[in-house]
Formats: sequence, C-alpha cells, structure tokens
Amino acid sequence: MKGDVHDRTCPSRTLLDRIGDTWSMLVVIALADGSLRYSELAARVDGVSPKMLTQTLRALERDGLLTRTVHPVVPPRVDYALTDLGSSLLDLMRGLEDWAETHIGEVVEARNAYDAR
Amino acid sequence: MKGDVHDRTCPSRTLLDRIGDTWSMLVVIALADGSLRYSELAARVDGVSPKMLTQTLRALERDGLLTRTVHPVVPPRVDYALTDLGSSLLDLMRGLEDWAETHIGEVVEARNAYDAR
Repeated sequence: MKGDVHDRTCPSRTLLDRIGDTWSMLVVIALADGSLRYSELAARVDGVSPKMLTQTLRALERDGLLTRTVHPVVPPRVDYALTDLGSSLLDLMRGLEDWAETHIGEVVEARNAYDAR
Repeated sequence: MKGDVHDRTCPSRTLLDRIGDTWSMLVVIALADGSLRYSELAARVDGVSPKMLTQTLRALERDGLLTRTVHPVVPPRVDYALTDLGSSLLDLMRGLEDWAETHIGEVVEARNAYDAR
C-alpha cells in the first residue's frame, strides 16, 4: 500500500501533519542518541508545555514511531525510545532543522522587506 | 547568522513551524515545475480552503519562499512561483512526502494495534 498525500482523504495526509509538526520533530531529534525519561525530554524540548509534550509522545507512540516503557520501580520510571520506523525519520527531520537554522537570516530579511512595503 | 531551533526564542523555530506545515509543503511541491495561477494552485492542493490557501501563500511570500506577480491584464492574472530559496526546500519536502506515502501502511497498523489495547 502506497499513500498519496495529495488526496485529502488519504491517511498519509494526517501522517504528514504529524511528522511535519515542530514538537514531533524536536522530540524525535532529542531521542536520536537513545532513550530518555519524560523529565529529560521535557528539559531538552525547550518551551514545550507538559500537556503538549504528553500529547506529542502519545501521538508518536500511537503511530509506531516511539516506544514507551514503564519500569516497575518506585517511583515508576518511564523511558521513551525511537522505534526503527521513528529512527528512519531522523535524516529528514535533521535536514529540515538544518535548513531552518541555515536560512533564518535570509528569511528574517525577507520578512522585514515584506512588512516594510 | 545561524539559528537554533532548540531555543524557543530563536526565529528559526517559527520557520520550522512554517516549513513543516502540511499546506506549505503541498504548495511548494505543487510549484516544483514552474509558476501557477491561484486557481491552478487551488485545484492542485486538494482540500485546501480559499482562506487557508491565501494565508499560506501570503506567509510563504513574506518568508521569501515564493513570489506573487500581478499581470496588468483584464481580468488581472496573478502568478505564484518559487524563489531560489523556496526551491531549495523541494528535496526535503519531497522526502517527507515520500516517507509518509511509503510508511502509511505500517503506521495505520500501529494505530490499530494501539487503539485495540
């Protein structure tokens, strides 16, 4: 089965929404080097609210992009890790991150020129 | 100047929001082969409302990713075309599109398994 994001009814459209989402990208990139606890993720994904982080993690888990492991210790420890499918997104997400960081100067100039006309 | 999307105050964060946006991606991909009129874009970007298409085009123009050219004919003709900066996004956006279309089967399976637990 191959999807078609240009068809509004294809589920791959909702998947494009998910993987293009900034919080999803920042979570996936944060998990690049291995599993993290919730509190570690919250510290690495600068600016994310607890509610948004929880929603993002649940959506990524539901889509099979990460696993959530509860360790039976007191207090409970919960680890998040990328699946192979989630890891296969890393190059693309880092590519978008790098593009944004590299070109922000040009884009800010363009915004200023647009706003001044 | 190089941005840092991991810093919530860096403008590259808002740029990542923009280029990760599904409508932005579909518009950029639609313009890959050359300029299009508004009505042609509306037809190619399946499911987009006129309001959302207009907002998306304005944001992409403001960020310097596309140009809007009004031809002085009756009735007026308006063409949209990618700038060099906008074209430099094509490979990344097609990469995300292709990833979503290729893996949607696995993701739908993961969603079904998650919802059944």
